[in-house]
Amino acid sequence: MFENEYDVIVVGGGHAGAEAAAAAANMGSKTLLVTMNLQTIGQMSCNPAMGGIAKGQIVREIDALGGYSGIVTDRSTIQFKMLNKSKGPAMWSPRAQNDRMRFAEEWRLMLENTPNCDFYQEMVNGLLVENGKVTGVKTSLGLEIKAKAVVLTNGTFLNGLIHIGEKQLGGGRAGEKASTGITEQLLYYGFDSGRMKTGTPPRVDGRSLDYSVMIPQPGDTVPEKFSYLDTPVLKSQRDCHMTHTSALVHDLLREGFDRSPMFNGRIKSIGPRYCPSIEDKINRFADKDSHQLFVEPEGWNTVEVYVNGFSTSLPEDVQFKALRSVKGFEKVKFFRPGYAIEYDYFPPTQLKHTLETKLVENLYFAGQINGTTGYEEAASQGLMAGINAHLKIKGKDPFILQRDEAYIGVLVDDLITKGTEEPYRMFTSRAEYRTLLRQDNADLRLTPKGYELGLAKENRLRRMEEKLSKSDAFVKFFRETSVIPKDINPILEQVDAALVKQSDKMFKVFSRPQVTMDHMLQLDSVSDFVSANELDREVLEQTEIQVKYSGYIAKERNNADKLHRLEDVKIPKNFDYSKLKSLSYEAREKLKAIQPVTIAQAGRISGVNPSDISVLLVYLGR
Amino acid sequence: MFENEYDVIVVGGGHAGAEAAAAAANMGSKTLLVTMNLQTIGQMSCNPAMGGIAKGQIVREIDALGGYSGIVTDRSTIQFKMLNKSKGPAMWSPRAQNDRMRFAEEWRLMLENTPNCDFYQEMVNGLLVENGKVTGVKTSLGLEIKAKAVVLTNGTFLNGLIHIGEKQLGGGRAGEKASTGITEQLLYYGFDSGRMKTGTPPRVDGRSLDYSVMIPQPGDTVPEKFSYLDTPVLKSQRDCHMTHTSALVHDLLREGFDRSPMFNGRIKSIGPRYCPSIEDKINRFADKDSHQLFVEPEGWNTVEVYVNGFSTSLPEDVQFKALRSVKGFEKVKFFRPGYAIEYDYFPPTQLKHTLETKLVENLYFAGQINGTTGYEEAASQGLMAGINAHLKIKGKDPFILQRDEAYIGVLVDDLITKGTEEPYRMFTSRAEYRTLLRQDNADLRLTPKGYELGLAKENRLRRMEEKLSKSDAFVKFFRETSVIPKDINPILEQVDAALVKQSDKMFKVFSRPQVTMDHMLQLDSVSDFVSANELDREVLEQTEIQVKYSGYIAKERNNADKLHRLEDVKIPKNFDYSKLKSLSYEAREKLKAIQPVTIAQAGRISGVNPSDISVLLVYLGR
Ligand SMILES: Cc1cc2nc3c(=O)[nH]c(=O)nc-3n(C[C@H](O)[C@H](O)[C@H](O)COP(=O)(O)OP(=O)(O)OC[C@H]3O[C@@H](n4cnc5c(N)ncnc54)[C@H](O)[C@@H]3O)c2cc1C
Ligand SMILES: Cc1cc2nc3c(=O)[nH]c(=O)nc-3n(C[C@H](O)[C@H](O)[C@H](O)COP(=O)(O)OP(=O)(O)OC[C@H]3O[C@@H](n4cnc5c(N)ncnc54)[C@H](O)[C@@H]3O)c2cc1C
Repeated sequence: MFENEYDVIVVGGGHAGAEAAAAAANMGSKTLLVTMNLQTIGQMSCNPAMGGIAKGQIVREIDALGGYSGIVTDRSTIQFKMLNKSKGPAMWSPRAQNDRMRFAEEWRLMLENTPNCDFYQEMVNGLLVENGKVTGVKTSLGLEIKAKAVVLTNGTFLNGLIHIGEKQLGGGRAGEKASTGITEQLLYYGFDSGRMKTGTPPRVDGRSLDYSVMIPQPGDTVPEKFSYLDTPVLKSQRDCHMTHTSALVHDLLREGFDRSPMFNGRIKSIGPRYCPSIEDKINRFADKDSHQLFVEPEGWNTVEVYVNGFSTSLPEDVQFKALRSVKGFEKVKFFRPGYAIEYDYFPPTQLKHTLETKLVENLYFAGQINGTTGYEEAASQGLMAGINAHLKIKGKDPFILQRDEAYIGVLVDDLITKGTEEPYRMFTSRAEYRTLLRQDNADLRLTPKGYELGLAKENRLRRMEEKLSKSDAFVKFFRETSVIPKDINPILEQVDAALVKQSDKMFKVFSRPQVTMDHMLQLDSVSDFVSANELDREVLEQTEIQVKYSGYIAKERNNADKLHRLEDVKIPKNFDYSKLKSLSYEAREKLKAIQPVTIAQAGRISGVNPSDISVLLVYLGR
Repeated sequence: MFENEYDVIVVGGGHAGAEAAAAAANMGSKTLLVTMNLQTIGQMSCNPAMGGIAKGQIVREIDALGGYSGIVTDRSTIQFKMLNKSKGPAMWSPRAQNDRMRFAEEWRLMLENTPNCDFYQEMVNGLLVENGKVTGVKTSLGLEIKAKAVVLTNGTFLNGLIHIGEKQLGGGRAGEKASTGITEQLLYYGFDSGRMKTGTPPRVDGRSLDYSVMIPQPGDTVPEKFSYLDTPVLKSQRDCHMTHTSALVHDLLREGFDRSPMFNGRIKSIGPRYCPSIEDKINRFADKDSHQLFVEPEGWNTVEVYVNGFSTSLPEDVQFKALRSVKGFEKVKFFRPGYAIEYDYFPPTQLKHTLETKLVENLYFAGQINGTTGYEEAASQGLMAGINAHLKIKGKDPFILQRDEAYIGVLVDDLITKGTEEPYRMFTSRAEYRTLLRQDNADLRLTPKGYELGLAKENRLRRMEEKLSKSDAFVKFFRETSVIPKDINPILEQVDAALVKQSDKMFKVFSRPQVTMDHMLQLDSVSDFVSANELDREVLEQTEIQVKYSGYIAKERNNADKLHRLEDVKIPKNFDYSKLKSLSYEAREKLKAIQPVTIAQAGRISGVNPSDISVLLVYLGR
């Protein structure tokens, strides 16, 4: 039935799989997306939201490279917020609340509109491998489908086991089957696998809530969006709401602790530390007698509501009784209880920077299967795996993002270099160059690369180039244009800043912390320049950041460049660390296991110290 | 978690379950819809179309009573056709092609907007029964939910087993779990169950088809719709296409016959005779070397395509090879293969006219579980079960539709009186009074009843009354107004009819077969009447039917009334047939088993002859 060999087969239609399929197909690979249910492509398993701190930056990066997640998000957003707007621009993080059904539908339609991307609905339960190289997949009906490369993105489905209180059900998500066969086969090929767990809160009937006693959480007054392309701008938004747990709620939850799979030892695997279940929070922060809950609508029209912050695998009657004691939830009705799920993952140190496995050639892993958590983390890995699978089979150089180029670079490098013992999610703190890796400049950083790959199209590049040249010109204008005291002092007075005595370059005044673009626009020459050059909000923002943060940015750039020199020092393949007796024992073992490609990567391995790096540098003649 | 008792629990969110929940809730019962997956409410398991011959009439009836199927259909229609328009109005049958995703989404949103209707996602795997009366359900998590009445609408899920070639997988639909536990428990309570099967064609990628060699099948130029309310009228439509199988295709299919579960005995249960699989058609009509295939889009935007007429459970490689030989399908790509499914059903002779089971009080069955096939058949049973569950627990009289009142009456009466050995679908030929049971007058027949039940709302009744009074007035106008030869003869000439010599009542001229409303509208007095009274298309059509078919209608009405007299002759409960020795042996056994409520019902039981009816009538003193 599938006589012809595909270039790339992507297994799984979650966030990782969808991006992988889109990338490979858009670059020209004949691609097949095989997934268990064609109606759940792009399904959000947990909260109906994209972005957030550090994750929002990732979505912008995916978009800048030519991935789809940003566009899909914009087309299904019901509320938008730029988080951390009061902090510096390195911290600004876009977050969208989404219509869950629309989001999945948009994903499906975008993929359908992608030439080269075929679809097939079935469970894959094995790989075809010849001489250490993957050659296709086997399905549960026994079909064999040939491909030059395979990307596995099985999410939480591999031997998925759902827990609610004392009860356990096999399943990849509530109401969906688990996937079997793949883990077993990979173990046979010598892979290590582990178990992780994650959880989700109950879904409830919005009609049963009393919003009047909760605190409304509206979206931004001027909502932005994710994609750098001209996706629609939100015209109206839906409010979220906030409420709190209480000592009583916690007591009620504690009553179920002896029946909790988390506490009675039934769940042994580790869950995401930063998306803890409510029972976890109560346990870890025993002194806090209140936690925030965000009450989030699941779409434009549906009454289904997501209770963010109340993830739990306690027995359903305990969940219910406790939630009924939350303000505004006195009459709550459940659509379904929360649950936890345990699943297999593969420690990602078994991967190369391209996300290709070290053990089986042309086999790639992306998403939750690598021990990460979150749609954005999954989507970005999917994109990278899709790109690299394509490049590999076409005999081209791999595409690797450095840590100073993208959060995606940080993510992949962290995963394959450090591995992860608990579900890995992105934070701004994981990026040593976060001033460089902002949400506003993802296009400037990555669109040229996406274009070179053939993934970002001409129109993307043009838009980015226009934004760049306009903001460069505007910065130049501020650098070159002077302002006289008579004009600028009234503005400085407004913000309580020291006045100037003689005329000075605008750039200098603008650099003062209190002065913003809005202030500068009060100057006729500035506003004239803006209208003459038709500068839009995005260019104004970019210019402001370039002016006000130029110092920080330059410094970080400099640091990064220094480190790049170490990035350029390659370590020969199969380097024999055992002969370097002056390496610490731990460093030697770790280096042997991870096989870093550069000195810089070696330096990031936990347990490898600067002294070890010196030893290596000396040996390599640097 | 569910402390309070519900009035009605509906198990299953297919077409039957959705209508049942809507009806019970709208009539005022506190209703809970429990279904395995809240994202598949109103899912179309097979073809994305509603209505068709006799089935379209049922949808109109559901709408007239205040059910939702018509509205949901109208809101998601991508193409509309009034079938059989060249025949008499008794045969006119509306049919809509639907956007599969929109259809399911509309169902879900309509139910969410129904007060009194709660939702819960889980598998029900048992009933709570006390003293022969149902008192609630048990779920797979072990929850017990109490209710006064329960409606089971499990569709094809009860011990569902999917077949493709030699392979078998448990499942209720492709990619969905089967339901276990319920059949076993019901058998324990003394129910009989059987196995049936049905099948579905492969889904394919529309981008891989060559439409230029197929025959376009556009929708009606002036598309109508299902609901009598003001649902949207189609502004644009999507074309379907027609192509054909060939001798070669049949030969290729035959190559797989030895691996077919239908022919090698693996599937023993009986499938729907009138939706046969392609292998069935080839087998039964061995002399035909071509069958029509309808190529139907699955929605407004998706590229997924439904191959109507190619239902099959042959091995997927055989399906594929054969389909590739169909004109326009030379390069077809599969989204998923066709398959057959076997499932448990309960012979419906175990039910009363209200769809309550005879063995367990307050337990109702509706839909495919009763051995029917088709969304419309399922939806109408759901509606009736929902209505009657509500009435029963509120201590009100049951709601039963007679055979001369509605196709729904025919359906239920057929089922419970005759049972069914093969999947039952509706045909116009099953209705002895089909001239009465037209699609155009479902509102006139049923909306007053729906209103009395509290199901159809005021606005529905008003619309129907307005239509009725306007068309009555228009008919009266034709009866009372004369036309002179000078005015009417030019029109009669147009249609080659005999001219009149003297003036005559318009009614008489209009009654002639060749003369249509369009012709009559050429008369100034007629068109003046139409504009003066603001008569719309629907009133014109209704009037035309009342004028032109008045004879047939009156005659059938008369026949029906005669039979009604037998319908009024009640047979006492637990009537002891064994003492009536003059009944034939077969009649006695059947009557004992079915326990008909009236003489008319007794007469419809196969094996009960007119002579048996006479015996009964005599005994009952008539
Ligand atoms: C209950 C639950 C709670 C979660 N809670 C959180 C949270 O609190 N915070 C957070 O950040 N993230 C959470 N997540 C994780 C988040 O959903 C995932 O990180 C993200 O969806 C991973 O994307 P993915 O593409 O790797 O996998 P998924 O989105 O899981 O998609 C996997 C896809 O692969 C398909 N598939 C699997 N196996 C096969 C096979 N053998 N053959 C064919 N197709 C197959 C599936 O059908 C599915 O389409 C949660 C997930 C679940 C299930
Ligand atoms: C493969 C296939 C092919 C078909 N082909 C045709 C055809 O050619 N022609 C035709 O007219 N009809 C066909 N049908 C039948 C048509 O789909 C059904 O007649 C119609 O959908 C029946 O509606 P229903 O409401 O009775 O059940 P379904 O639509 O099957 O819905 C059943 C619902 O019950 C839920 N459910 C089941 N068990 C449980 C449980 N224990 N607990 C909670 N929820 C439960 C399910 O999740 C689902 O929502 C086909 C169906 C299938 C699956």
